Amino acid sequence: MKFELTILGASSATPTSNRNPTAQVLNVLERFFLIDCGEGTQMQLRKFKIKFQRINHIFISHLHGDHYFGLMGLLSSMHLLGRQTELHLYAPAPLKDIIDMQLKFSETYLNYPLIFHPLNFDSKNLLFEDDLVKVSSFPLYHRIATCGFLFEEKPKAKSIIKEKIKEYQISVADIHKIREGHDLITKEGKIIPNRELIQPEPRLRKYAYCSDTRYNENLLDYVSDVDLLYHEATFLHELIDRAEATFHTTAKEAGIFATKANAKQLIIGHFSARYPDLSLLLNEATAQFTNTHLAQEGQTFLIE
Amino acid sequence: MKFELTILGASSATPTSNRNPTAQVLNVLERFFLIDCGEGTQMQLRKFKIKFQRINHIFISHLHGDHYFGLMGLLSSMHLLGRQTELHLYAPAPLKDIIDMQLKFSETYLNYPLIFHPLNFDSKNLLFEDDLVKVSSFPLYHRIATCGFLFEEKPKAKSIIKEKIKEYQISVADIHKIREGHDLITKEGKIIPNRELIQPEPRLRKYAYCSDTRYNENLLDYVSDVDLLYHEATFLHELIDRAEATFHTTAKEAGIFATKANAKQLIIGHFSARYPDLSLLLNEATAQFTNTHLAQEGQTFLIE
Repeated sequence: MKFELTILGASSATPTSNRNPTAQVLNVLERFFLIDCGEGTQMQLRKFKIKFQRINHIFISHLHGDHYFGLMGLLSSMHLLGRQTELHLYAPAPLKDIIDMQLKFSETYLNYPLIFHPLNFDSKNLLFEDDLVKVSSFPLYHRIATCGFLFEEKPKAKSIIKEKIKEYQISVADIHKIREGHDLITKEGKIIPNRELIQPEPRLRKYAYCSDTRYNENLLDYVSDVDLLYHEATFLHELIDRAEATFHTTAKEAGIFATKANAKQLIIGHFSARYPDLSLLLNEATAQFTNTHLAQEGQTFLIE
Repeated sequence: MKFELTILGASSATPTSNRNPTAQVLNVLERFFLIDCGEGTQMQLRKFKIKFQRINHIFISHLHGDHYFGLMGLLSSMHLLGRQTELHLYAPAPLKDIIDMQLKFSETYLNYPLIFHPLNFDSKNLLFEDDLVKVSSFPLYHRIATCGFLFEEKPKAKSIIKEKIKEYQISVADIHKIREGHDLITKEGKIIPNRELIQPEPRLRKYAYCSDTRYNENLLDYVSDVDLLYHEATFLHELIDRAEATFHTTAKEAGIFATKANAKQLIIGHFSARYPDLSLLLNEATAQFTNTHLAQEGQTFLIE
């Protein structure tokens, strides 16, 4: 069962000749989530052969252009290519006006329902949930209202180890109780603990996306113990003053944050165009948190 | 003195994996004009090493997204890279609201003056003029209000052939008169025609841009005798019904139009994504007008 992130772009503010602005696709058990949608995202989806009609949920962190200027083009192409399936868009409220105005003046009437969910920037909020996955937003610390997103697998219903049913001749009534978490009391009055009767639960995988934000330990509450953490690292630490002034994070800070969050793996991104060579950023973060990777176009990160 | 067109993109509606939506840069005597600005235009400018801070005039033909979704990204990057020079934008009036709304919600205050000139769709209108070049708009025939653009060199001030000044011992007063177009009357009463005294005028070069439009011979008035004609050719002629329904032109019609316009050279573009191989479109247009070329990313057309 797949839990895989593909990087479509990771430049900050201005794209460079070989780096696109921010966008990522997360495949959680064949649910495709698009996270931010910088200019050129639809071309990147094509380039990396991700069928964009499979995307049913789009999350936009904030209204700086490098995180959403590709959205209108993608929505239009989905329409022109005959999409009829609902598309859910989770984004700051004004984006609805921005979209509606552009549809109006192009006299475009989308063939598919575009369902807009305005983000709330006050606390953690559940945005989407089905039987296997849930997605929440949480507030980041940026110049304008910005959210991070947390993608989590949900626990499955407990299932009993078949051999135990035979061994203890468990009744149907007791099977239900065990699935709900109760221990078994045998005819002989012996107590068999629940954990000995049920299948071991698979580890529930989590991905947290933090871009753009000033380094802030309040975020640890939302993202602790994630398998995969994306944290922006716009600057080297020698530009900490610039990071503070523009509400961004340095590579060193991103590494410190991943350590404190007890993350298993860190991806850094949102690189300033001033760094043609990203190895300095990688080295700085890795000095703080060993399992760090660069967000680079087309790269995938699989959580097993 | 350069008169050179560079194609940045020529797909219609939806971009393909190897074709970007419409945008072109025209260099007329070191004035750089950007014509339409589909998604990814700023990346294309970088790719083809055109310094986008040299662009001071942008022309947007209409508000279908494949002609302007790259504009916000380009305006933002110009700002972030420190532009302070005036930028003139000629476009349908609602584009100003679309831009202002997006600047507002990103809390962006452009460092440079963005001077907006709303297009008029009724007739031919002069948009820009300096000592060497003028640019006009003219109405096209599309589903929504759309303009074509005509770029023309202006006649230079007449200059006298130096040898003639010596030969006829022409006075300063007479030099002025000759420059204004008068003949010379020598002391002996002999009339020397003006055309024998002045430098032969160089041919004045013209480029006309017609996208998107239904085939319409009313346009011939605006574009006749151009050196270079760009005309959309979205479909093969077998899809003439679709061309009529969507207010587009077929490759055959574009060729016929170029012949009737007495153009010297035709570029066809705005190709439907249904044609992975463009040679059929080229062949169809060439059968009508021999000197036809495909608009392809990165290609330049020099008018000598």
